[in-house]
Amino acid sequence: VAKRLEKFKTTIFTQMSSLAIKYGAINLGQGFPNFDGPDFVKEAAIQAIKDGKNQYARGYGVPDLNSAVAERFKIDTGLVVDPEKEVTVTSGCTEAIAATMLGLINPGDEVILFAPFYDSYEATLSMAGAKIKAITMRPPDFSVPMSELRSAISKNTRAILINTPHNPTGKMFTRDELEEIASLCKENDVLVFTDEVYDKLAFEMDHISMASLPGMYERTVTMNSLGKTFSLTGWKIGWAIAPPHLTWGVRQAHSFLTFATCTPMQFAAAAALRAPDSYYEELKRDYMEKKAILVEGLKAVGFKVFPSSGTYFVVVDHTPFGQKDDIAFCEYLIKEVGVVAIPTSVFYLNPEDGKNLVRFTFCKDEGTLRGAVQRMKEKM
Amino acid sequence: VAKRLEKFKTTIFTQMSSLAIKYGAINLGQGFPNFDGPDFVKEAAIQAIKDGKNQYARGYGVPDLNSAVAERFKIDTGLVVDPEKEVTVTSGCTEAIAATMLGLINPGDEVILFAPFYDSYEATLSMAGAKIKAITMRPPDFSVPMSELRSAISKNTRAILINTPHNPTGKMFTRDELEEIASLCKENDVLVFTDEVYDKLAFEMDHISMASLPGMYERTVTMNSLGKTFSLTGWKIGWAIAPPHLTWGVRQAHSFLTFATCTPMQFAAAAALRAPDSYYEELKRDYMEKKAILVEGLKAVGFKVFPSSGTYFVVVDHTPFGQKDDIAFCEYLIKEVGVVAIPTSVFYLNPEDGKNLVRFTFCKDEGTLRGAVQRMKEKM
Ligand SMILES: CSCCC(=O)C(=O)O
Ligand SMILES: CSCCC(=O)C(=O)O
Repeated sequence: VAKRLEKFKTTIFTQMSSLAIKYGAINLGQGFPNFDGPDFVKEAAIQAIKDGKNQYARGYGVPDLNSAVAERFKIDTGLVVDPEKEVTVTSGCTEAIAATMLGLINPGDEVILFAPFYDSYEATLSMAGAKIKAITMRPPDFSVPMSELRSAISKNTRAILINTPHNPTGKMFTRDELEEIASLCKENDVLVFTDEVYDKLAFEMDHISMASLPGMYERTVTMNSLGKTFSLTGWKIGWAIAPPHLTWGVRQAHSFLTFATCTPMQFAAAAALRAPDSYYEELKRDYMEKKAILVEGLKAVGFKVFPSSGTYFVVVDHTPFGQKDDIAFCEYLIKEVGVVAIPTSVFYLNPEDGKNLVRFTFCKDEGTLRGAVQRMKEKM
Repeated sequence: VAKRLEKFKTTIFTQMSSLAIKYGAINLGQGFPNFDGPDFVKEAAIQAIKDGKNQYARGYGVPDLNSAVAERFKIDTGLVVDPEKEVTVTSGCTEAIAATMLGLINPGDEVILFAPFYDSYEATLSMAGAKIKAITMRPPDFSVPMSELRSAISKNTRAILINTPHNPTGKMFTRDELEEIASLCKENDVLVFTDEVYDKLAFEMDHISMASLPGMYERTVTMNSLGKTFSLTGWKIGWAIAPPHLTWGVRQAHSFLTFATCTPMQFAAAAALRAPDSYYEELKRDYMEKKAILVEGLKAVGFKVFPSSGTYFVVVDHTPFGQKDDIAFCEYLIKEVGVVAIPTSVFYLNPEDGKNLVRFTFCKDEGTLRGAVQRMKEKM
């Protein structure tokens, strides 16, 4: 294996989903729904396949999807972007992240992450040869330690990576935090890469896109995807929205990472993004019910549950149960209790910072959530 | 744009397909069929979508596809590989290439390419920080200049990249060539990365996989895909087959480039790979007819046509028509004649080497091929 990837292990999601199967444990680990996406989107994919939309798509997206992404972005942020020059369709947000890093970051550039952070950020920055600085956000509210951020910025800082709503904590960046970060970026000529795949799962406050702040669009790459919003995580349709000069870098990397994304699924994604408001409202209502079941359940089991404003995740402090650390706790939980959670230490540059915390997802049907809570109540 | 991608332009395939649309020209440029893939494969995809196979696949492939790839590889090469440890499903062969380079090549490693070569090889090697050495294969037969290859190998050579059947020339590496390359690799402890996406389009001789040569499997990454064999280029299902120690590097890069590939299409790909022999025979028969139409036509127009043994491409010398170089010729061909071809200079480290050659594809229905020949006969 090349040195740039030496320190990385099999992703924790793959490890935990394999263990779930091996031990017959209820999987509240990897974030994929155990219910299906909406019929109208599946029908659109089937129709596209039947209609012979099966050859290479245009590299940066089928025109109809680029347009649908731009339309949705206008509804969400008020910003008008050119679908032909500012939208790039990718094979999931994971590829949008890789293309952004490899397309815009040079070896030696510094990039600031907020820990805990999704594992692919660090790995793709390592591929790009970036120097990573991580600022740790701490429970209970996981707020941004502004003075640490301020002193982390140097003349070599090329970008700050934001993820809101935030995986794994469910934290949503507040307007104050975003404004302060925006000022720092403008003062220091720093870019923002923002992963907003959970933007439609914003429960306790409104989602705010960094790109919508004054003067920020021109220095921001906004990344999103179909999977979480439409419960179709396996389709792997994502996109990056950015001004033309940044889009150029993203597209160049994308051209050589995958060239183009699955054509019929792109047509279906375009149909999905044009769903009426009622779709989004119902999704949110459903998830708020699921969240209540899991959060109440975890509290009743005896966890300290940290407030989660968005995403389909909650983070808890597992220390009441006496295990050495998050990895040991998750092993115990799988083998003795029959439930899978995700240890959070893998989301930190310094794993110590996450050793008291584990993440549960509530993107499962009610019976599964209640079943998991039941097992924990009985066996812990 | 990051320095690693500064020298690359919009891919020639994208440029030419856009021009084809703009000028209403017949597109014999980018290699995608203008006919649809087989119904049984499309039906399998539709069934998978209906069956709710719509969430994240296992990162390295749904088990059934990993098995189908291994079964097919056994039929093709006689080699028995472990589908769980030696097969990685990727988002098209393009991603397999990127993951191989980023997962196995360190900055400063030397990699040897045979020019002309597919554009993503150079770009992904640049992402990996490799030093590229290109050995030019020359018309009429595009044979490997062995002594040049021998002297190109140094103690820093990490890999040799092979593509057989070869895009853009249609050359197939002979057993003698493969054996000589294999000896050099074993003597000098060099890996082989082999792109064999056109292996089922082998017309004039049998395809030979480098991995099947004695002692070579353990140092070879074999890359292939669904698109060309099943006329479904837009589905973007590819894979890499390699021994576990090399697979580890490929999978690590893949995990962070795309994480996983479109789930329902993987189920369909598994069904496709289990097609009976008759499917492959018919495909070949159809393509031989198409090839005859195009080759006879191009000769009748007055081109010097170089022999092509496999792929759905032929390369011609365009100099009888008096244009300055391949780019000028392709512009003339689009604007004055109404036919799109691909200039080959973009496939060389030194563009001069390709200036007399252009590539035509015959992956189009008979009417389209005859129509293109007709236009050329009338206007040139
Ligand atoms: C790409 S697998 C990870 C799924 C996910 O987003 C998560 O569980 O954090
Ligand atoms: C990935 S677009 C290029 C298609 C192709 O293989 C070719 O035309 O050479």
